[in-house]
Amino acid sequence: MTKQKPQLEFREEVKPEDCENVRQILVSSGFFSADEIRVAVELVEERLSKGLRSGYYFLFAEQHGRRVGYTCFGPIACTKASFDLYWIAVHNEFRGLAIGQELLAKTLQGIVNLGGTRVYIETSSRPQYSPTRSFYSKQGFEPEAVLKNFYDDGDDKVVYSKTIVHS
Amino acid sequence: MTKQKPQLEFREEVKPEDCENVRQILVSSGFFSADEIRVAVELVEERLSKGLRSGYYFLFAEQHGRRVGYTCFGPIACTKASFDLYWIAVHNEFRGLAIGQELLAKTLQGIVNLGGTRVYIETSSRPQYSPTRSFYSKQGFEPEAVLKNFYDDGDDKVVYSKTIVHS
Repeated sequence: MTKQKPQLEFREEVKPEDCENVRQILVSSGFFSADEIRVAVELVEERLSKGLRSGYYFLFAEQHGRRVGYTCFGPIACTKASFDLYWIAVHNEFRGLAIGQELLAKTLQGIVNLGGTRVYIETSSRPQYSPTRSFYSKQGFEPEAVLKNFYDDGDDKVVYSKTIVHS
Repeated sequence: MTKQKPQLEFREEVKPEDCENVRQILVSSGFFSADEIRVAVELVEERLSKGLRSGYYFLFAEQHGRRVGYTCFGPIACTKASFDLYWIAVHNEFRGLAIGQELLAKTLQGIVNLGGTRVYIETSSRPQYSPTRSFYSKQGFEPEAVLKNFYDDGDDKVVYSKTIVHS
């Protein structure tokens, strides 16, 4: 059976059930550690308790109200127009449908609308993350800096950046 | 009159009055923007409301209970043993007495005690921060990465790092 790209709805508003949505999306990838998932869910909780003052913005992709993928991003304190993309993930059931690409494009447009001009994504140098790094490169991000052994011995942090412009 | 190095007391515990202490230390330098000072005070507030769960550790240097300088640091989420040094500052009245050096040494020892092996400090490439960068270099930190135009056009972020070992 060929998977077909679902008709997606996008939502910026954050609801209490998004803690569980985010957890399901990240667990489904089999990719993230319990520690990483806990941190990701904490960002949803921060947003729920503090609102936009938390600095965490979200974009959820859904199909008939069901979780498909999401991004979490926000302005970097003490910078003029730089944003971090903290998380981008698509539920395993919906992989291979270019949904990550659509989520990223809509997120970058949201950042432009918020006045952002530079976007940063951090990821690991481990082989496991090779598809992730290829994805960022294909979307026009460039590896700008490497911090050796940042995550662990032999596990560097690679910082990708992209300059975006108001169209 | 020659300034003499005061007899300092060091304190890790955080008190409500430290919001004001941090504000005074940072304002005295004439160095930080209102935005930066607000963020620094927010870290104290986070620590007061959440305790160590905030991820923010502090070291205060005092003379007879009066604020002299401080550091703010903490483990970086999802890393094995990396720490950020978020803030290090000495009140202008006490500058030129090598107090920053003492604060940094004690902070690095604290990080070692917490199991940390790598420490990161971020700062700006602007000429104003040249003494800051020299200070980090003298203390054995190396400029490991540069993110161009991170803070603003022409204002890069320089990431310094240092590997520390249990003695």
